[in-house]
Amino acid sequence: MKVIITGGAGFLGRRLARALLDRGTLAGPDGQQRAIGEVVLLDVVGHPGYDDPRVRTVTGDIASTALLHDVIDAKTSSVFHLAAIVSGMAEADFDLGMRINVGAMRNLLDVCRGGRQRPRVVFTSSVAVFGGELPPIISEETALNPQTSYGVQKAIGELLITDYTRKGFIDGRALRLPTISIRPGRPNAAASSFASGVVREPLNGEEAICPVSPDTRVWLASARAAIDSLIRAHDVESEALGIRRALNVPGISVTAREMVAALERVAGTDVAALVRWENDARIDRMMNGWPGALDDTRARALGFPADENFDAMIRQYMREEGK
Amino acid sequence: MKVIITGGAGFLGRRLARALLDRGTLAGPDGQQRAIGEVVLLDVVGHPGYDDPRVRTVTGDIASTALLHDVIDAKTSSVFHLAAIVSGMAEADFDLGMRINVGAMRNLLDVCRGGRQRPRVVFTSSVAVFGGELPPIISEETALNPQTSYGVQKAIGELLITDYTRKGFIDGRALRLPTISIRPGRPNAAASSFASGVVREPLNGEEAICPVSPDTRVWLASARAAIDSLIRAHDVESEALGIRRALNVPGISVTAREMVAALERVAGTDVAALVRWENDARIDRMMNGWPGALDDTRARALGFPADENFDAMIRQYMREEGK
Repeated sequence: MKVIITGGAGFLGRRLARALLDRGTLAGPDGQQRAIGEVVLLDVVGHPGYDDPRVRTVTGDIASTALLHDVIDAKTSSVFHLAAIVSGMAEADFDLGMRINVGAMRNLLDVCRGGRQRPRVVFTSSVAVFGGELPPIISEETALNPQTSYGVQKAIGELLITDYTRKGFIDGRALRLPTISIRPGRPNAAASSFASGVVREPLNGEEAICPVSPDTRVWLASARAAIDSLIRAHDVESEALGIRRALNVPGISVTAREMVAALERVAGTDVAALVRWENDARIDRMMNGWPGALDDTRARALGFPADENFDAMIRQYMREEGK
Repeated sequence: MKVIITGGAGFLGRRLARALLDRGTLAGPDGQQRAIGEVVLLDVVGHPGYDDPRVRTVTGDIASTALLHDVIDAKTSSVFHLAAIVSGMAEADFDLGMRINVGAMRNLLDVCRGGRQRPRVVFTSSVAVFGGELPPIISEETALNPQTSYGVQKAIGELLITDYTRKGFIDGRALRLPTISIRPGRPNAAASSFASGVVREPLNGEEAICPVSPDTRVWLASARAAIDSLIRAHDVESEALGIRRALNVPGISVTAREMVAALERVAGTDVAALVRWENDARIDRMMNGWPGALDDTRARALGFPADENFDAMIRQYMREEGK
């Protein structure tokens, strides 16, 4: 099995690589678990060192067709396409978002077509494909109605995954991942960055600004659940998915207020007091344009993992980060 | 006013050009009717001659950015984007469909951004953006669920029109045109070609093959109604549309059986007897994947024209073609 991870130096990409190397196998074309012989990590930024002969790191622009042809060949069985311009950045720099989230994705899918086998392609979509006046329950059949350029670009990605799969070019799976919380590290340009910051910064003894109104509802998953979902999405049989290739990945639904209350229960009043509520209209509007909960019935039935609640997600983060 | 028509040598493009030249005006940026100073017709095939100093014809590949920059400049107030690879062709030649229906459209929108003004861009989408298990009434909020590459490419076009408009780059309007019936001329590669052929060929004394089952329901408009809809779509005020830029254009809903019955009423039994029912599984499947009726309430309220019934559409065609 030759596995490609785009965005391989990113937060999810590094964790996915680690998980695949530890696990050692993925489902092959016949559905049987096969040994992973090579993991190619592709990213525009540099990679951390890997002391594993199965790993090859490639630094370059994913929008380059030549680069894609260099890494994706006839032996490539699996592609995890995680590389993307994040939501806030795609809104601020429209052309960059289009170039990577639409243009590079098209190139990637076209290069995948060239091989002898139909590679399994796992694409990370987003809840940002939904928006506008939403029904109380967002099923997988709810109309795509993105309110941001990021959401539009991810919706286009889903349409392409479905059509390339229908045509028999690839065996695609599009995952509407919840917002990952709690990410270690520093804030990023994603509008949802606060969903990690309001826990991470106070646990570091730093003040955190919550830019959304307390009743803003967000749909969250831990990094561990997200990684397990990516692997499950790869391994689930094509027939079990049928023609519907976009999946609502399981998550939990909490408001910003409930997140801070959970932090107070787990880490104490002094820590939770480090959260300062300071509304940022732009971020508030973007986040309230995304759905706060999805119907994840199909993914759960297909064996996708789910987190228990936000208290458990905070405790898991503290264990992993040695807090 | 400088007006561009892509696909300007095609069936709708030529009729639209004629209608605009006869009319002489279109709504300007301030909503007032302004004289049309120039109509640029762009197409990959050659153009008929025009004895009108306002017309400029350009032959070339719409996927060429250089060509688009040549014809679309800072003075361009209006673009009617009709150029497309039709449904059957986009299914047969996937790469060609993607190159024109997605790639060229992105280029076009990006070139439109460069001007001093926000041009009004009228894009012809299709009912093929809908499909799968459809509700009894297809509103403008029904989920896009295309079952063909053509439908996927038109859905991507709608998403782009909406997002480029939201960003303030253009003032876009996407029209889900019904199938045009009755087109003069010869059959084409569109899956819906029969919806003209079953009337046109018998009126010419020729046999016509109906490749779909008699109960197949189609959503139709006359060429005249479609042209009036394109002009109305251009002239309707941006504020009246709001953020919802895709419109279900008014049509009539008839089955293939009802079409032939109307032909018998209007032109007689002998003419209608020239229709031969010979199922083509590929076309039957494509057509039955498209909706046979749409909720066109919003477009009607915005002043879009509608045909009366299929009998009237046959009579209108016979008058126009001197039958």
